[in-house]
Amino acid sequence: MDVGFVGLGAMGQGMARSLLRAGHRVSVWNRSPAKAEALAGEGAQAVRSPAEAARGGLAITMVADDAALEAVTSGEDGVRAGLPRGGLHLSMSTVSPATTARLAKAHAAAGQALLAAPVFGRPDAAAAAKLFVLAAGPADALERARPLLEAMGQRVFPLGDDPAHASLVKLTGNFLITTVIEALAEACALVEKGGIPPARLVEILTQSLFAAPVYQGYGKTLVEERFSPAGFALPLGAKDNRLLLQAAEAAGVPMPLASLVRDRMIAALARGWADLDWSSFGRLSREDAGLAKGPPARAGT
Amino acid sequence: MDVGFVGLGAMGQGMARSLLRAGHRVSVWNRSPAKAEALAGEGAQAVRSPAEAARGGLAITMVADDAALEAVTSGEDGVRAGLPRGGLHLSMSTVSPATTARLAKAHAAAGQALLAAPVFGRPDAAAAAKLFVLAAGPADALERARPLLEAMGQRVFPLGDDPAHASLVKLTGNFLITTVIEALAEACALVEKGGIPPARLVEILTQSLFAAPVYQGYGKTLVEERFSPAGFALPLGAKDNRLLLQAAEAAGVPMPLASLVRDRMIAALARGWADLDWSSFGRLSREDAGLAKGPPARAGT
Amino acid sequence: MDVGFVGLGAMGQGMARSLLRAGHRVSVWNRSPAKAEALAGEGAQAVRSPAEAARGGLAITMVADDAALEAVTSGEDGVRAGLPRGGLHLSMSTVSPATTARLAKAHAAAGQALLAAPVFGRPDAAAAAKLFVLAAGPADALERARPLLEAMGQRVFPLGDDPAHASLVKLTGNFLITTVIEALAEACALVEKGGIPPARLVEILTQSLFAAPVYQGYGKTLVEERFSPAGFALPLGAKDNRLLLQAAEAAGVPMPLASLVRDRMIAALARGWADLDWSSFGRLSREDAGLAKGPPARAGT
Amino acid sequence: MDVGFVGLGAMGQGMARSLLRAGHRVSVWNRSPAKAEALAGEGAQAVRSPAEAARGGLAITMVADDAALEAVTSGEDGVRAGLPRGGLHLSMSTVSPATTARLAKAHAAAGQALLAAPVFGRPDAAAAAKLFVLAAGPADALERARPLLEAMGQRVFPLGDDPAHASLVKLTGNFLITTVIEALAEACALVEKGGIPPARLVEILTQSLFAAPVYQGYGKTLVEERFSPAGFALPLGAKDNRLLLQAAEAAGVPMPLASLVRDRMIAALARGWADLDWSSFGRLSREDAGLAKGPPARAGT
Repeated sequence: MDVGFVGLGAMGQGMARSLLRAGHRVSVWNRSPAKAEALAGEGAQAVRSPAEAARGGLAITMVADDAALEAVTSGEDGVRAGLPRGGLHLSMSTVSPATTARLAKAHAAAGQALLAAPVFGRPDAAAAAKLFVLAAGPADALERARPLLEAMGQRVFPLGDDPAHASLVKLTGNFLITTVIEALAEACALVEKGGIPPARLVEILTQSLFAAPVYQGYGKTLVEERFSPAGFALPLGAKDNRLLLQAAEAAGVPMPLASLVRDRMIAALARGWADLDWSSFGRLSREDAGLAKGPPARAGT
Repeated sequence: MDVGFVGLGAMGQGMARSLLRAGHRVSVWNRSPAKAEALAGEGAQAVRSPAEAARGGLAITMVADDAALEAVTSGEDGVRAGLPRGGLHLSMSTVSPATTARLAKAHAAAGQALLAAPVFGRPDAAAAAKLFVLAAGPADALERARPLLEAMGQRVFPLGDDPAHASLVKLTGNFLITTVIEALAEACALVEKGGIPPARLVEILTQSLFAAPVYQGYGKTLVEERFSPAGFALPLGAKDNRLLLQAAEAAGVPMPLASLVRDRMIAALARGWADLDWSSFGRLSREDAGLAKGPPARAGT
Repeated sequence: MDVGFVGLGAMGQGMARSLLRAGHRVSVWNRSPAKAEALAGEGAQAVRSPAEAARGGLAITMVADDAALEAVTSGEDGVRAGLPRGGLHLSMSTVSPATTARLAKAHAAAGQALLAAPVFGRPDAAAAAKLFVLAAGPADALERARPLLEAMGQRVFPLGDDPAHASLVKLTGNFLITTVIEALAEACALVEKGGIPPARLVEILTQSLFAAPVYQGYGKTLVEERFSPAGFALPLGAKDNRLLLQAAEAAGVPMPLASLVRDRMIAALARGWADLDWSSFGRLSREDAGLAKGPPARAGT
Repeated sequence: MDVGFVGLGAMGQGMARSLLRAGHRVSVWNRSPAKAEALAGEGAQAVRSPAEAARGGLAITMVADDAALEAVTSGEDGVRAGLPRGGLHLSMSTVSPATTARLAKAHAAAGQALLAAPVFGRPDAAAAAKLFVLAAGPADALERARPLLEAMGQRVFPLGDDPAHASLVKLTGNFLITTVIEALAEACALVEKGGIPPARLVEILTQSLFAAPVYQGYGKTLVEERFSPAGFALPLGAKDNRLLLQAAEAAGVPMPLASLVRDRMIAALARGWADLDWSSFGRLSREDAGLAKGPPARAGT
């Protein structure tokens, strides 16, 4: 298929490469052009605007936040201006349900469709085409996009025809990951002060009741305090937490555990950890237990 | 082997039967004798005191809390009085590290050993000999007990020679389960108010990043609000939370997430849910979101 | 002095009347004109737009939130368009520091000044000219506005020349009030279950260490559960809490107690209490303790 | 009157001196005898046991915690053994309602009475006879003790005939003080990062809605970070918080704000602040906001 790909960050690069590997013709655009040129050397075609990327009728966006998505979608250089009638915007960024709903409406008014398809997985999963894809929007849009989604992910989970639902489930999933980080962090601090190696705790947990990738991955990260380089940076995690809490407030749902994570993340940012992985807030449990001293280690230092 | 088994509650019954199935000779004692008699019909020998159960040199205890463990261990009818020198107390209840340490010391003074071996798993896992066993105490005690542990569980995790460590890891594991309940409960309330079936959320999570038994089991329980009959009753869960917070305070570890769960459990008990499963506190997230009305359903009503 | 008054809600009415009583010439505007006409019968002059109210060179605004303040300030009918160069906008609403800063800049660009002067006190204090006024902005603006502020309040607290500071202190004060509500609510639930009349607790506290108006007022409200009619409605309180948390996040300050209040307020709104006083979230402590049943009483029902 | 005084810590000394000043005959006992001898030089009579102090028929106890109160009350050297039938134990320590109830019962069985009379106020208030006294127990016991209570305090608040009620209200009052500390600490961190001197915030608050001694005193302590020497040491504060949470759990009352304070106190103790004033946990808000660096200042260093 002909597809435009907008947004070549750590995630987008891997996803665009997955499409190329699967034989699709991919035109790419990125705010800083160097990344697009790198992809061009691998068979993609670099174009000069999101609008141009969208001209073939199907554009994927994978950008950092709601504002960036608005910026590449709207305006005369945006995806909406470039897409023909009948075109499809495959919106894969993690954004608020409200933004997704607003853009879906604007596309519909232009005779276009929006399929929201945010993903679970970090850059390594993107590179290996092992993402989990949530997909919500018109049924025919999903069928049209399916070959692309399957080229980028290991599994696609349909979520019905309201695109905002995919955004909400994505934020909810990220929330659940943060609860694992907080829970493991508190648990590790406790056993460490009790004289038990936290690595042993994580080993036992992940070989019994908690044998899930998320406990294995973050358990290891927390025990080794390997927060740098960041797989998913703390400010982005804080952004997702903020979007979740806004959605929860709008829906009338108190989420005290999400509030707890919020305060942890702000405290971590206030310590100057914006360059670290979002899981670094878990280190605060060690600080509060009197275990951690000094700043966390940075890669290459 | 000859083994005495003290405590035939929902867990103990299944564990004693596993021992019988594996060909061990089991003498049993329970505070209310009817349960011991039932086991006697299946090949066990009912005895008249924990001391008598311990006479053969190896006694297992599986009781509800620290006080019950003290009661069956100490005094002239207790395990310690019954065990010969060189005897082994296999203490499998979930109790505080402090109680475990105190009993270990008392046994040592009597020339006996204590191996702490609490388990992960609910009554169905006990019945199916699928428990996960944590084991800490003298190395030779572990080797001696291993055939019994393997008859009751699917896997044994050694935790070194300090028996209190097994109790601490067990409490920590139960804490982590409660964090899953709270996290899922908040997440389900959010998506439910957003128009997405919570069952669909749980399905997606447990087929992607959260493919662990604990998310599958409690996800289903929460979505179906099937809190009755209780697999593990709320007052017992509240007891474990209390022991955890006490251990954490003694160790100097603040655990705000455990505190959050504490307040949830107290609120659930204050609503009269003492007969329900400990996961019933997850229903408070739906109440707080204005979703749940009226008391939760009880089995058979 | 000649002064325009924009916003005749429960607070604004009392404040405008205080100005009239002090002999100032007041032109009034309100979104729904009936209230302006009522004031006209007491000596004020009803005008047709915020701009017209501002024409005399000094306009006071007292509206519900940031959006309303933006609406009456900007645009061709707004205060900024009406004020002459050298004019003064006395902004008394509770809004975000960011909004205050942005409006101050826009006024400065128009050769005008903004003095932020939010107040502590409820409608009865507004009617009695007993408000406490926080004031920040250019020193000469404060001197110019002082006779008006003193006509409306019992005391003026200068806060320097940055108008945003007054907004921040005002939000902080409201936060502190919510902490009193939450603290008293938990305390009253505890003693009530312990068999002590909560009214007796409040009486003792407010005659000893907590002899402050805020404990007296909210203590009485909580004990009597007199949340209706609302002196300050819950959605407005939730708005202030939201602004506070946003300012705190922007400043890098975790505020777990404000987060706790946030979750309480959302839970109260989810129960349908939007018509009640903001202190009604304190009732949740009684619900969580199993004390309160059924919806809170409404005035006149 | 003839009165025995047991426990001459920072509080007890001032209280015993108030009794001497009022003309009462006071026999004193303290675990470490040096303090009793100091009082002896001021007109008191040092005795050799709590029992001996109680022989005259009325004994006051003012000790650190439940265990110390048990120790000076029970046993052959204890107050109960020394008091004649008809004697009165005036129990002024801050202890759990459960301990108070148990001791009251034991005294009643011995034909004696217990009046629980814990106090609000720090050592300076004790020295100045400015304490606030809560009093619960048999009505005639209160009348008998009144001259003593009035010699030590500025006001006596009767709380009915159940002695445990005085203990519960005392713990509740201490809880409320901790909520003021936490609230002020968060508020001060916010305005400090916003560029406003926290001292100015405290000044404004305590001259308007929060004009209560507790805001004035702790506001000043927090702003100046004057946590050393401790007026009321952190471990004692943590003890009171623990007793409160135990009483709340027993009564079925979730108190999330008390839980928040609990976690703060544990974090402060884990940082090595056991020698500091209990309000020192408020400094954690500055740490979490990235403001405080290094350990807090100690007196004389």
